[in-house]
Amino acid sequence: MEKKKRTPKINYLEVFGPTIQGEGMVIGKKTMFLRTYGCDYSCDWCDTKYTWDGSEKHNMKRATPQEVFDELKETAGDKSFSHLTISGGNPALQKESMSQLIDICHENGVKVGLETQGSIWQDWFYKIDDLTISPKPPSSLMKTNFLTLDDMVDKLVAENVNFSIKIVYFNEDDLRYAKDLFKRYKDKGYDIPYYLSVGNATPYTSDDITKQLIDKLEELWDLVMNDEELNDVQALPQLHAIVWGNARGV
Amino acid sequence: MEKKKRTPKINYLEVFGPTIQGEGMVIGKKTMFLRTYGCDYSCDWCDTKYTWDGSEKHNMKRATPQEVFDELKETAGDKSFSHLTISGGNPALQKESMSQLIDICHENGVKVGLETQGSIWQDWFYKIDDLTISPKPPSSLMKTNFLTLDDMVDKLVAENVNFSIKIVYFNEDDLRYAKDLFKRYKDKGYDIPYYLSVGNATPYTSDDITKQLIDKLEELWDLVMNDEELNDVQALPQLHAIVWGNARGV
Repeated sequence: MEKKKRTPKINYLEVFGPTIQGEGMVIGKKTMFLRTYGCDYSCDWCDTKYTWDGSEKHNMKRATPQEVFDELKETAGDKSFSHLTISGGNPALQKESMSQLIDICHENGVKVGLETQGSIWQDWFYKIDDLTISPKPPSSLMKTNFLTLDDMVDKLVAENVNFSIKIVYFNEDDLRYAKDLFKRYKDKGYDIPYYLSVGNATPYTSDDITKQLIDKLEELWDLVMNDEELNDVQALPQLHAIVWGNARGV
Repeated sequence: MEKKKRTPKINYLEVFGPTIQGEGMVIGKKTMFLRTYGCDYSCDWCDTKYTWDGSEKHNMKRATPQEVFDELKETAGDKSFSHLTISGGNPALQKESMSQLIDICHENGVKVGLETQGSIWQDWFYKIDDLTISPKPPSSLMKTNFLTLDDMVDKLVAENVNFSIKIVYFNEDDLRYAKDLFKRYKDKGYDIPYYLSVGNATPYTSDDITKQLIDKLEELWDLVMNDEELNDVQALPQLHAIVWGNARGV
């Protein structure tokens, strides 16, 4: 008797939306969110530590791609949507299950955006409509594996995937890291959109962080305007945090 | 004797930068600005009325494309740049002169962005690297010529130009206008990036307008999240006004 093939499942923490994407290459875009569970990194300033630090392990869900898509539709309720952002944690930890979810989205007219740090490759990256590769700078206390990252960027460029590279900015070391990374790929002749994103130093406070974030953006803009190594970048805030603070699930 | 062909000149008010593009499809991008003189519109809420209301006619300059490019380099000083934004007024009032400036920019490795309301076509639109067509909604008190606009959009789509459509949002009528316009082109099967941009109700005050602009963005986001006719949009603020207020020349 042939063994029945099991449908692969997605490990995730939550779905929410419709909301607005607050950062990066589709900033301002109306989107649903899927937040996957688990991460191969543990960034010092991570603003979603609950996806990997164990504190919400009891909330982790496992469901088939079709079940996740159904939950997205149920969550949106009477509102329709045409874009899904997959974030984490690191969503690249999900394998065949995620590939199937992307296909289901596309069959239903929903485009898919994804953000990942570039530490793990998945072939389904080729199917993503807007892909953000966000290697983590020194302030994260993580180390970049450039062999993996270079290979990933080479593949995405070769297959003409709509992707960008985004670096979080907290301090001078981060900016140095960003400049070196941008130069690394410019020197290969790659015309990739490069983003800098202002980091949120207090992602868990309920205080008003609007002024702090705007001041930090102004600081970054001043640096960008005066540095020819940063000619090609787009420097942006986390607009959702400016508007809504650290509220979760929006 | 053959008559010597005169080099065409650009009518403009000012160049400034490097600064940051605060809105639209390349939001956050480091760029120089060229502000042309003159407009075929007179929007009620225009934030650069001095380009057409006569109040700064004495400041209008006329120069050849090469002279304008030289002034851009001189203004940037020891800072280099790789992007120029041409704004107005309506820069589409400039003909062959602008075509030549674009060529000079490209020869020098400088990409060119342009914003125009879509009331006048120029063949040099095909050469723009990021083109924003920004038809004016009811709050402007202007009337859209849809024959001209449709023809423009058809051409840009046919030639695969990197362009977006951006509508300024002040009120419900503007949103109705935006939704109808987006639908007009979606129904043709066009996959154009659609932007909504929060209008600035007090573009000439020196008061702090940050809170007002953020509140208005939150209002717009709420509307977008709850309206399926706005599924595909990106809704953004004028980020430069949030950070710098109404300061001119930045």
